Amino acid sequence: MILVLAGGVGAARFLEGLVQVVPPASITAVVNTGDDMQLHGLHIAPDLDIVTCTLADLIDQGQGWGIRGDTDACLSWLIKLGGPGWFKLGDRDLALHIRRTDLLRSGHTLSQVAEEFRRVLGVAVRILPMSDDPVPTHILTDQGEMHFEEYLVQHRAAPQVHGVRFVGVEAATPAPGVLEAIATAEAILIAPSNPVVSVGPILALPGVREALLASPAPVVTVSPIVGGAAIKGPAVPLMRALDLEISAFGVAQAYAGLLDGMVIDQVDADLSSLIAALGIRVAITDTIMRGPEEKANLARVSLELARGCRIL
Amino acid sequence: MILVLAGGVGAARFLEGLVQVVPPASITAVVNTGDDMQLHGLHIAPDLDIVTCTLADLIDQGQGWGIRGDTDACLSWLIKLGGPGWFKLGDRDLALHIRRTDLLRSGHTLSQVAEEFRRVLGVAVRILPMSDDPVPTHILTDQGEMHFEEYLVQHRAAPQVHGVRFVGVEAATPAPGVLEAIATAEAILIAPSNPVVSVGPILALPGVREALLASPAPVVTVSPIVGGAAIKGPAVPLMRALDLEISAFGVAQAYAGLLDGMVIDQVDADLSSLIAALGIRVAITDTIMRGPEEKANLARVSLELARGCRIL
Repeated sequence: MILVLAGGVGAARFLEGLVQVVPPASITAVVNTGDDMQLHGLHIAPDLDIVTCTLADLIDQGQGWGIRGDTDACLSWLIKLGGPGWFKLGDRDLALHIRRTDLLRSGHTLSQVAEEFRRVLGVAVRILPMSDDPVPTHILTDQGEMHFEEYLVQHRAAPQVHGVRFVGVEAATPAPGVLEAIATAEAILIAPSNPVVSVGPILALPGVREALLASPAPVVTVSPIVGGAAIKGPAVPLMRALDLEISAFGVAQAYAGLLDGMVIDQVDADLSSLIAALGIRVAITDTIMRGPEEKANLARVSLELARGCRIL
Repeated sequence: MILVLAGGVGAARFLEGLVQVVPPASITAVVNTGDDMQLHGLHIAPDLDIVTCTLADLIDQGQGWGIRGDTDACLSWLIKLGGPGWFKLGDRDLALHIRRTDLLRSGHTLSQVAEEFRRVLGVAVRILPMSDDPVPTHILTDQGEMHFEEYLVQHRAAPQVHGVRFVGVEAATPAPGVLEAIATAEAILIAPSNPVVSVGPILALPGVREALLASPAPVVTVSPIVGGAAIKGPAVPLMRALDLEISAFGVAQAYAGLLDGMVIDQVDADLSSLIAALGIRVAITDTIMRGPEEKANLARVSLELARGCRIL
């Protein structure tokens, strides 16, 4: 079994590559739920939906989130009725949130809902939320503390960031199966996701870091920072707020002590000796996932690196 | 102030006539909430929405309910995700249910939500739910006891009916303003709605019948039964279950002791002496509300009858 620690868009694209090179049913994705929030009284789970809908080939590939061809009739009326309009929710998309909220309110866990959605949408990859407990990621900014999605979407990542909080993480537990998956994986791949707000919440859960250190599986990541810039999303200001260098080396620092290997982009080849000096094996390839071939190549290189780490 | 006791489609059309002949802001509608139900975890309020959206000129006039031009992208996905599909919910329609549920969960009352929706949608008629407490109408059938909408929509009114229950009505209270409106109205019009399941729940609320009897205002209804058939909906089997004659006379019996006047259709003119024998003044007109003129005429005749009743 190949375990992937996953955020949203970057992780979903990485998984699209992985399912091309290993049997999808042999993959388990543990997905960040720090972005989850209540909006319109509905439980929105951005990363779970991005991962599930991408693997179900339903995603709007252009933007990386949302359902392809979705419409916004409901949201336009919600706004008319006084509801918040800053977070885009398509009509089909809303069905996921309505159904999830209904199932959660009637006693199901988020894990059970994720499993049900995966099954109904025909996704063979096993999808686990990182936790069934709410652990909202808050961003501490010069405009106050706010939910990550408020920071990213409502405020367009404009406020100055000076810290990050995973609210309630101390009391949260990893979802059923997460620690077992870490213990029994052949390889653990940290997707090219934001190390601070996508993978950070997973690593902050009690027991996860210890399980990763105890697991015999090699831990390999793909840098989401290429040529000193984030491929997508607000990694730069968030890494800067945590005093991380905005580079593949900074990503390696973010995962200090956990990594056996790291895949970096060709443009960052000059960083390989610096990263290697941290005791991390480095593989260099084209990490920009433009199409199916680049995705498959990145998955292949990551798995080869993981296999190489195990042999050493 | 003119008070209208209202169900769904028939009441909404009657109100469309009334707003043509008296200032809309002088009208208060007390609307049945016995049809309200939880579906997909959302609070659906069929009659409130029909009345509000009809007066906002948003309704699908052909079917009498639903938003004109609405789409069903969300529902089709809810069904795909395993949700119930028997009750049609358009994308725009769902916005009402999502927003209402969100407001209710955050502590607002149904009255407050109804007032907010009315205001936002530009409806001048005051709209009061009959109660802020849930009082679901259950139909006792040969296939068991079921919610009214399950009986009507899911089972297409096919089961044999042998009774009706307004669950929790003994402990429910009329919504704020309902008893005051009854006490202070100049005229009380019972819309041409189903006497058993549309007006019945309003009359069953503690204090409502007493308030109607105590009010100096004349109480006038329009028969929803014309020529021995219901204009719309399942009045026939429901009236039959309560041993009511399927006629304007049966409707008069259903409101025994409450009515000062009744408007009946020309085709039922032969019933006028029977109804008059119950001490009820009768007006005869064309009661089928085909278009704006017929609606306005029906409202005018009803108001004239009410004025006549008061003089006597």
